[in-house]
Amino acid sequence: MPLRDALSKRGLIMARVYGYSDALAQGEIESHGGNVYRLAEELGLDVSEIKDFSASINPLGIPKSSMAAIRDNIPYIVHYPDPDTRMLCQAISEHHGIEPSTILCANGSNELFYLIIRALRPESVLTLAPTFSEYVRAFETFGGDRFDDRQIKRVFLKEEDHFVIDVDVLITAMAGGMELQRARRSPILNSPDLVFLCNPNNPTASMLSREEVLKIADAAKQLRCHLVVDEAFIDFCPEHSVIGEVSKNPYLIVIRSLTKFYGLAGLRVGYGVFHQDLIGKIKRFKEPWTVNTLAQVAAISALKDTAYTQQTMRLMEEEKTVLEDGFRALKIRYYPSAVNFYLLRFDPTIDVVNRLKKQGIMVRDCSNFIGLSKGYVRVAVKSNRDNMRLLKELARICLA
Amino acid sequence: MPLRDALSKRGLIMARVYGYSDALAQGEIESHGGNVYRLAEELGLDVSEIKDFSASINPLGIPKSSMAAIRDNIPYIVHYPDPDTRMLCQAISEHHGIEPSTILCANGSNELFYLIIRALRPESVLTLAPTFSEYVRAFETFGGDRFDDRQIKRVFLKEEDHFVIDVDVLITAMAGGMELQRARRSPILNSPDLVFLCNPNNPTASMLSREEVLKIADAAKQLRCHLVVDEAFIDFCPEHSVIGEVSKNPYLIVIRSLTKFYGLAGLRVGYGVFHQDLIGKIKRFKEPWTVNTLAQVAAISALKDTAYTQQTMRLMEEEKTVLEDGFRALKIRYYPSAVNFYLLRFDPTIDVVNRLKKQGIMVRDCSNFIGLSKGYVRVAVKSNRDNMRLLKELARICLA
Repeated sequence: MPLRDALSKRGLIMARVYGYSDALAQGEIESHGGNVYRLAEELGLDVSEIKDFSASINPLGIPKSSMAAIRDNIPYIVHYPDPDTRMLCQAISEHHGIEPSTILCANGSNELFYLIIRALRPESVLTLAPTFSEYVRAFETFGGDRFDDRQIKRVFLKEEDHFVIDVDVLITAMAGGMELQRARRSPILNSPDLVFLCNPNNPTASMLSREEVLKIADAAKQLRCHLVVDEAFIDFCPEHSVIGEVSKNPYLIVIRSLTKFYGLAGLRVGYGVFHQDLIGKIKRFKEPWTVNTLAQVAAISALKDTAYTQQTMRLMEEEKTVLEDGFRALKIRYYPSAVNFYLLRFDPTIDVVNRLKKQGIMVRDCSNFIGLSKGYVRVAVKSNRDNMRLLKELARICLA
Repeated sequence: MPLRDALSKRGLIMARVYGYSDALAQGEIESHGGNVYRLAEELGLDVSEIKDFSASINPLGIPKSSMAAIRDNIPYIVHYPDPDTRMLCQAISEHHGIEPSTILCANGSNELFYLIIRALRPESVLTLAPTFSEYVRAFETFGGDRFDDRQIKRVFLKEEDHFVIDVDVLITAMAGGMELQRARRSPILNSPDLVFLCNPNNPTASMLSREEVLKIADAAKQLRCHLVVDEAFIDFCPEHSVIGEVSKNPYLIVIRSLTKFYGLAGLRVGYGVFHQDLIGKIKRFKEPWTVNTLAQVAAISALKDTAYTQQTMRLMEEEKTVLEDGFRALKIRYYPSAVNFYLLRFDPTIDVVNRLKKQGIMVRDCSNFIGLSKGYVRVAVKSNRDNMRLLKELARICLA
């Protein structure tokens, strides 16, 4: 049996080339969640009138403490930002109990995906499908215009598994299709240099436990393959973060964001945690001053705001029940969510996305994610009022 | 006569390799102007007590209109920034009378230097010496760890010429050491793919006129070599900008910044103007959402604030006279300046930089610029009060 078929049978399918120019043509890049400014213009509305369920951001808005910090620091904008973001690194260090020298702050976590690719120069990358598309774009824009089949590999998540990742399948893919034990002893063909693992995964909302991620990280170490765990949404289930484990594993990289949980999407701030042996190499490729002064002070305040965290957790618990009850009542298929959004599946003949859009409601059309198809939609968990409004509009569509 | 000697004789000297790791070891990257946060910590002072002459930023601070825009837009931070920065592109378009579709906004002009290198992938780059160091760093970090002598070329500016660029020498360097006419007819060895021209030049404050830059741009077009004109300081002498000429020359790229003139250093916003035939290629390599929401609104307000512009121009005229009179009285050698800073030359045995630092005054030690040496210092033009304070401290040092 050819290797390809063998892998395919085990749920591990080699990806086809996915060109950036194709993506652009299909509107992939432009249809990331959240361009409220464009829809407001299209509908002739003010931005505040748009209900944005397409970007999965905390409905509480940014912490009041961050707002105050921003206002207080406007006069300091006249100086360059601290390029070393030392006070922010200190705050992150205290928040997680990790060494400040292992932390690198960035202009959103996105800067770090591109930076990692430029610094580590992987020849081949493994990721999930569906997952956040910027990993592949980072790899593509660094590597140039043309790729062959071998360079971007994807482990496809299955609808029948509720898009939950099979850890053994992923590890086998990391080992180039071999058993891990065998892979360690023999030359590996087709094994990736770097893995992007989004946990919890966007857009499926599925999560691996901390133990499962550590099993993958351990395999990465044995295979000398870098594992980038994107924990953009893990603040909603922080007990499953592996951020404290980076110091023990030079192949494990953890990326965090203040966009989703703390609502700092518009200011751009994220951070990465790298092993001591690795961070120097990454910094050598970093562009200076990418984290603006207001982002730094807003992030420091946000991380210290435990009242905001508790309030967010309570709101999420309540509102996720509201939405799940609603989805069930409307017979809308949804998948278990560890986070502040849901992947929904509609009859592909119903144009849910555009019908909601006409009502000023933005949701994320997921049909352009590799591994999904027409009918898949991602919605954020928002305030009770907004969630009820969404359910009402969905009722008009689904019960028609 | 070997080529190298021939070029050297004509004022065109091939550069030695300048590794980024060396730069880091020498504190080059960390000693860009402006880390007030570090000095404040060192001296146990508040940031507001530091007099920062090291970063050449408008002493008026950011426009009041921008401050108001920032405050009003804090609630919008919860949304992702407009990735297309459409309103800002519109404002820039109106400000310069150019097509919005030729404008690309970025996280400071720095993002654009790195982006241009990644998109155009030049094999060799020509720049001035001394000049802003990030051009070379952008080229080095994209191209990898090792370079040979041929890839980074520099035209050295001469002290005896007041560091003014000789246009013919630069064009000859662009033509690989040949006369332009001959270069157009025969295969060119050793000619650069891309030129970085900082005008007015940082840190020398020397300026080429609009006509001179257009002569260089015309040569670039004939040689099919991209010319990046960094106009970070040209708002202080706007009649010499070539921004309106980009639409006629696909090899001309103009980069602008809101850091210096408008004081938005801490928010990070710059823009590039590219020919219609080129901008699509550049955008393909652009990371999304790099310009934060507050930077976008602050920049829009700043560009429309003509009162602020007039006030700045008046202040500069007055304070440059104050400083020049002071320098002359103290017998400090300075070079003619078209902008808001001066390059000064002191006796290299006097440790001016550290003696000022102990008084809470930061100036830019320029000894680590290629093409300068110990004793060269850059100072910004600041408020009358600050300038008098600087002159007083310099008097204590120079007249001792």
